[in-house]
Amino acid sequence: MKEVRVGICGLGTVGGGTYNVLTRNAEMIAGRAGCPIRISRIASRRRRDDLDLGQIPFSTDVFDVVNDADVDIVVELIGGYDVARELVLAAIKNGKHVVTANKALIAVHGNEIFEAAAERGVIVAFEAGVAGGIPVIKAIREGMSANRIDWIAGIINGTGNYILTEMRAGREFGEVLKEAQALGYAEADPTFDVEGIDAAHKLTILASTGFGVPLQFERAYTEGISEITPYDIAHAELLGYRIKHLGIARRRESGIELRVHPTLVPQSHLIAQVDGVLNAVLVDGDAVGQTMYYGPGAGDEATASAVIADIVDVARTVAHESLQRVPYLGFEPSSLDNLEVLPMEDVQSAYYLRIEALDRPGVLAKIASVMSEHGINIESIMQKESELEDGRIPVIILTHTVQERQINRAIEDLEALAEIEDKVVRIRAENFN
Amino acid sequence: MKEVRVGICGLGTVGGGTYNVLTRNAEMIAGRAGCPIRISRIASRRRRDDLDLGQIPFSTDVFDVVNDADVDIVVELIGGYDVARELVLAAIKNGKHVVTANKALIAVHGNEIFEAAAERGVIVAFEAGVAGGIPVIKAIREGMSANRIDWIAGIINGTGNYILTEMRAGREFGEVLKEAQALGYAEADPTFDVEGIDAAHKLTILASTGFGVPLQFERAYTEGISEITPYDIAHAELLGYRIKHLGIARRRESGIELRVHPTLVPQSHLIAQVDGVLNAVLVDGDAVGQTMYYGPGAGDEATASAVIADIVDVARTVAHESLQRVPYLGFEPSSLDNLEVLPMEDVQSAYYLRIEALDRPGVLAKIASVMSEHGINIESIMQKESELEDGRIPVIILTHTVQERQINRAIEDLEALAEIEDKVVRIRAENFN
Ligand SMILES: NC(=O)c1ccc[n+]([C@@H]2O[C@H](COP(=O)([O-])OP(=O)(O)OC[C@H]3O[C@@H](n4cnc5c(N)ncnc54)[C@H](OP(=O)(O)O)[C@@H]3O)[C@@H](O)[C@H]2O)c1
Ligand SMILES: NC(=O)c1ccc[n+]([C@@H]2O[C@H](COP(=O)([O-])OP(=O)(O)OC[C@H]3O[C@@H](n4cnc5c(N)ncnc54)[C@H](OP(=O)(O)O)[C@@H]3O)[C@@H](O)[C@H]2O)c1
Repeated sequence: MKEVRVGICGLGTVGGGTYNVLTRNAEMIAGRAGCPIRISRIASRRRRDDLDLGQIPFSTDVFDVVNDADVDIVVELIGGYDVARELVLAAIKNGKHVVTANKALIAVHGNEIFEAAAERGVIVAFEAGVAGGIPVIKAIREGMSANRIDWIAGIINGTGNYILTEMRAGREFGEVLKEAQALGYAEADPTFDVEGIDAAHKLTILASTGFGVPLQFERAYTEGISEITPYDIAHAELLGYRIKHLGIARRRESGIELRVHPTLVPQSHLIAQVDGVLNAVLVDGDAVGQTMYYGPGAGDEATASAVIADIVDVARTVAHESLQRVPYLGFEPSSLDNLEVLPMEDVQSAYYLRIEALDRPGVLAKIASVMSEHGINIESIMQKESELEDGRIPVIILTHTVQERQINRAIEDLEALAEIEDKVVRIRAENFN
Repeated sequence: MKEVRVGICGLGTVGGGTYNVLTRNAEMIAGRAGCPIRISRIASRRRRDDLDLGQIPFSTDVFDVVNDADVDIVVELIGGYDVARELVLAAIKNGKHVVTANKALIAVHGNEIFEAAAERGVIVAFEAGVAGGIPVIKAIREGMSANRIDWIAGIINGTGNYILTEMRAGREFGEVLKEAQALGYAEADPTFDVEGIDAAHKLTILASTGFGVPLQFERAYTEGISEITPYDIAHAELLGYRIKHLGIARRRESGIELRVHPTLVPQSHLIAQVDGVLNAVLVDGDAVGQTMYYGPGAGDEATASAVIADIVDVARTVAHESLQRVPYLGFEPSSLDNLEVLPMEDVQSAYYLRIEALDRPGVLAKIASVMSEHGINIESIMQKESELEDGRIPVIILTHTVQERQINRAIEDLEALAEIEDKVVRIRAENFN
């Protein structure tokens, strides 16, 4: 099986995350890609003490990666426009595939880069550049390929969304911005995020992939959130709306709307519920209707997730003989795991129980002692005198996570109590953490 | 440029949608696929009077499609287990690629089908089988390929979600089910949907693609929603939870949890906000964290969107010489549109205006007449005496959709009024429809 060799340029936040995930999940990723993926070279301005690079050749000149015959894919994670552009064009010239997380580069120099790559017959991939770990470029370019896409609207800058979320509590922009800077959510110079430039880079890429038009970043309109007041946020809420910093691209007969600005969205729409640093992109296609893609738009390993998805895509394309480029179940048959589905009694979950108990003294204590005998911890318990009916009071319990076996045995014991004549209602609960 | 020939088996809901979208968007889809995609044969039990099939050969025997040398991809949309299994295995035997929307078939016979396809070297694709138009199989198999996936939780049956959503208003299961049947959201025999069997088919496929394990539908646990009462729904809400019919797959050291049952989820989690017939799948990966994919899980054209995405995937793989299987911007360079980005004044939007007006008689009438002079319709207007400050009252207006040019001119005129001394605050609004 052919091996695919990756050279990483830039070992900062995303570069470090990419190194760590590729190393930690190497075996599983090979099972999905159909070949081993090896980091064969790394270059960055400085070494990092917190990463053990083992035997991997390291240099400070990123062009060493591009000129190394032992590299198939150049992963550009240095950021910026000029050196990054030179680096990517040099990689293409050398016949190497390119994976990048650099939205500024693609939005501004993408047309030139794609032309060079098409001429040289190499792949250029940039999933990580838009909405970090959310595979939204893939969703649009591949998952929605049947559709005439009419518009795309996204919360595609986590810093701005965090600030607007916090301002709903009545706090001023400036105060929340300072806090975001202290928490590391916002840069010392927040202009790029807060004035919508970063979002406009991403929106430019989304619009071009959705509508099939060349990249036109220079024509994007941007308006920031620094003028938004808690007063307007509160009044938008009274009208049933929420203010979000959206990137909106819309196809009109006469041209494309491409604009980033604060926007009122109906509170009842799912995108209004996307809070904090999270990102979401809403896409409207003529066949499918509205779909939404949600998740972390930044972060070392979240962004690395998208970088590596692109690397695996390249590997599946170049290292494969079979036409089924992506294995049926996502993993090569020889890499399938033999884990079996567990019997339901072995499953772990939290539980909601409703126990209709006769209204007798001490009944609550009896219930609690059954739960504790079976090692079940209670998260909350509710009992309302006012709901007394036919001499019975409902007792409602929410448990911590336990094995289904424990709950089933506890229910048997509960139903054996003299005070409990009905079957106990049991519904499973999930906290997703 | 090579052409890819598609044979459709089954011209019902999804088959008809696939025919319509492939026909309507033919040119655009060819621009994305890199080659024309032609429907070369159709078979179904009966002709449909509402579809003009033109010159396309039609037969009632679906095996005619499989045996037609003029077909590259067999699209199986007849549903069911037995004939569908035979049909798909026969297509594979004849060296044809297969695209199917049939989750029951894949969940139950997938292991056998994939083995046969791998041996014959053909592609089998089944995106439409899980969550209809949402490209979640692609997201998991390709977008999250860097991740060790720890769990997947989905609202993957629209009927069940519709019923639970309506029950939040205090209505009983049986009553809402009847209504759902009348609306066409539920089948005459609702068992498949309401008892979780359909969801278990989809969950089985999700779990196998996420964890890399063979399909094990026979070991899935299912529990329906027919026992859920408005009482428990209300009490779950009091505890801060919402009841959803979830499919949950979780990887444990000892095996896989694979279960469909009513589940309490925190109201604050995005998945709790997915209401009505819509679907959503939440995926947790070790690198990216939680991502969610949301949209229509059924419907003729929504499901066709996923069927055709699979067809385009096959076309991009088989008909292409270039390594960049998916074009950089999703469309072949020669198919890029020359639509330009519009100047901001030409953009259409709704607007929130905040006008700080001096508290004088007739000021509201003056504002309204400026709006109407510029052809701007008002959706709602708000003015509160209680907010009088320094002799000024804020007037808040939400407009219908107009051109930005109109709003800018209206604002100029407003700011020229003697009663308005401050700048008018203007924030754009979107209703996403
Ligand atoms: N951070 C995120 O969450 C995120 C999310 C999505 C996309 N991105 C994109 O990913 C890219 C990388 O971002 P990042 O956050 O990882 O940035 P970062 O932490 O600043 O990392 C960049 C690394 O590249 C090195 N570098 C820069 N220019 C170099 C040069 N000319 N020669 C050698 N080394 C050079 C830097 O070294 P020094 O620090 O020593 O200068 C640093 O180690 C950017 O395009 C960014 O927009 C980031
Ligand atoms: N509907 C959705 O929204 C949706 C969403 C996701 C996935 N799916 C899946 O897509 C598949 C098709 O669903 P559908 O809703 O389109 O079903 P449908 O409307 O019943 O369409 C099936 C079509 O196939 C024909 N057919 C069935 N067996 C046949 C046979 N042996 N020979 C010739 N023709 C035959 C039927 O003809 P007659 O009607 O004359 O029998 C009908 O025209 C199913 O696997 C389903 O699970 C559906």
